[in-house]
Amino acid sequence: MEALIAIDSFKNSMTSIQANQIVADQLAEHDISSRQIAIADGGEGTVAAFLANQPGGEAVTAATVDISGEAIQATYGYFATEKLAVIEVAAASGIQFIAADKTPAQTNTYGTGLLIKAAIERSATKIIIGLGGSGTVDGGAGILRALGYRFLDAHEQPLAMVGRDLGRVVRIDTTQVLPALKHVQFVNASDVTNPLTGADGAAAIFGPQKGLPVEQVTDYDAAMQHYMQVATGQVSDHLGDGAAGGIGFALRYFLGAEVKSGFKLIAELSHLEQQVANVDFVISGEGQVDDQSFMGKVPIQISELAQAHDKNCYLLVGNQKGSNQAFADHGVTAVLPIVDHVSTLAEAMQQGPENLTKMADRLARILVR
Amino acid sequence: MEALIAIDSFKNSMTSIQANQIVADQLAEHDISSRQIAIADGGEGTVAAFLANQPGGEAVTAATVDISGEAIQATYGYFATEKLAVIEVAAASGIQFIAADKTPAQTNTYGTGLLIKAAIERSATKIIIGLGGSGTVDGGAGILRALGYRFLDAHEQPLAMVGRDLGRVVRIDTTQVLPALKHVQFVNASDVTNPLTGADGAAAIFGPQKGLPVEQVTDYDAAMQHYMQVATGQVSDHLGDGAAGGIGFALRYFLGAEVKSGFKLIAELSHLEQQVANVDFVISGEGQVDDQSFMGKVPIQISELAQAHDKNCYLLVGNQKGSNQAFADHGVTAVLPIVDHVSTLAEAMQQGPENLTKMADRLARILVR
Repeated sequence: MEALIAIDSFKNSMTSIQANQIVADQLAEHDISSRQIAIADGGEGTVAAFLANQPGGEAVTAATVDISGEAIQATYGYFATEKLAVIEVAAASGIQFIAADKTPAQTNTYGTGLLIKAAIERSATKIIIGLGGSGTVDGGAGILRALGYRFLDAHEQPLAMVGRDLGRVVRIDTTQVLPALKHVQFVNASDVTNPLTGADGAAAIFGPQKGLPVEQVTDYDAAMQHYMQVATGQVSDHLGDGAAGGIGFALRYFLGAEVKSGFKLIAELSHLEQQVANVDFVISGEGQVDDQSFMGKVPIQISELAQAHDKNCYLLVGNQKGSNQAFADHGVTAVLPIVDHVSTLAEAMQQGPENLTKMADRLARILVR
Repeated sequence: MEALIAIDSFKNSMTSIQANQIVADQLAEHDISSRQIAIADGGEGTVAAFLANQPGGEAVTAATVDISGEAIQATYGYFATEKLAVIEVAAASGIQFIAADKTPAQTNTYGTGLLIKAAIERSATKIIIGLGGSGTVDGGAGILRALGYRFLDAHEQPLAMVGRDLGRVVRIDTTQVLPALKHVQFVNASDVTNPLTGADGAAAIFGPQKGLPVEQVTDYDAAMQHYMQVATGQVSDHLGDGAAGGIGFALRYFLGAEVKSGFKLIAELSHLEQQVANVDFVISGEGQVDDQSFMGKVPIQISELAQAHDKNCYLLVGNQKGSNQAFADHGVTAVLPIVDHVSTLAEAMQQGPENLTKMADRLARILVR
């Protein structure tokens, strides 16, 4: 018997890779072999997931800067054969770098741009950028500056393109843009659909989460509109432009990036559907399944694939909301909540690995009975 | 596919009968037929369990008295073909009748004796007495008096044989004992092993639970010793004599009762082992399974039977303590805790039926996959 294990993360409890491995170990105890696919959504863990799924990759550590310009080391994934790099915005420009005395007006994504540049210098021709967990609202200008775009003010002086410079840009000079950039295909791994500006824009929605005082949102949004106007000649709404404080815009407009969900990328690169077709049954799951799961969450996308290939699919979950039948309608053989005793939420998260171990063992015992 | 369902009660949440029915209904939804065996331990629910397991029984309501002599109606089970009666001590002499202003010195089991007499008058030749949940400490003398035994004091006057009369008995007159009694076979359904007297005796252990002031325990125990001396010519320890405030002693010494656990009786009368052999798999469970379960608790007795007949056995439980392997060693295919989300103990008990419903449904879905 062989299983395909593709469990999403149990937030604040287990990563996808950890959860998969726990289940694989338990199945192995009962002589059920398995293959694993790590799930990622473009946020933290995306690089690790790609490296885990794909043979031939390496974790490359490069010198770069954080959102305040401090020197740091950050890691991205590189697959030499495919000339593919996988970069998390969170690695150099994540929320973990937000300083108490700074707002988005003083930070940018320059460090992520340096990682992209490093990957290109390493011969990458395809770069997947995971947009989750960013700590900036710079419209992606920091990235662009690292790649050679020059943002000039009214005196033709180059701007650093931290957030407060967005409203000062008068001209964008592309003469020094990295020549290799035009041979690079970018993919934006993100599920965010916010536009760059306006009430649902980057400043309004993500600004306050990243330390922007609420009373500065209106001015910040106006500066972002100005930036878009200078860059594109107009202010318009594109779904996803607002992702990661506007990196979505920079990737789309300047770098021609295609947008794909992290899951879709993982599914394609790891040949998920073919793997489903080749195993005896499938195990997925995540911290919680509920009505939202039917709106395209990973476990249900996987159970529907299993259903299409007439395979049983078990979801190991922290918490199940919704009837068994609702999940069965989407190809789930059984949802198996791993919480197995009276416990608080904190205990349940802390005991997640132990509870998952026991439930995977139970399932294996039933399947090999 | 056919299942045997024999789940013990989930204390303060579901009776055995309720739990069995919930699971049977869910299996039926997935076209798995089942037969049920209700579990009882001699306490409340024992009559209902026997009536549920055995065709041809009826619930007989008879006039009797409670532990203070107040007139009440109480119910026992009667199987006409087998001439078998099943009587719970709790029905007429249960803890629910303890009055705030009375102690065991003022109460007795006379009402249970009246039920036994009624059953004998109805032609019972075998009477199973469930000893759980009693509210008295009378050495079973009340029962005996109702059956014709006369307890006489120093002046040859008959005593009522409430607790305070135990020390006053000088002679026991058996000339008026119900003649039919000698044709009746008694079975004491109990797991209690306390002796009648001493540090582990009825007064010491059960007295305080039933309202006996702790400072009166020594005198009460001395009176119980006197009672045993008068009855048997000696004071000796017999395991189980102390059950139900000493009813164990009266049943053993005066009525020749055999002692059997409630489960063993159920198992025999419902041909449990044969039923295990005839189904495809077995479902048991109870509110909690833990290390104690391996000391002869019902679910493990059942799983060991299933193992002996090479059948899978699933335990649906409120709470699992102990490793899956420990249970597997006793024939359990999988322990399936029904708590499926973060909840308090009170919530878990209140949601027991709902949680059991969902888990039974999950199991059925896996089994018919």
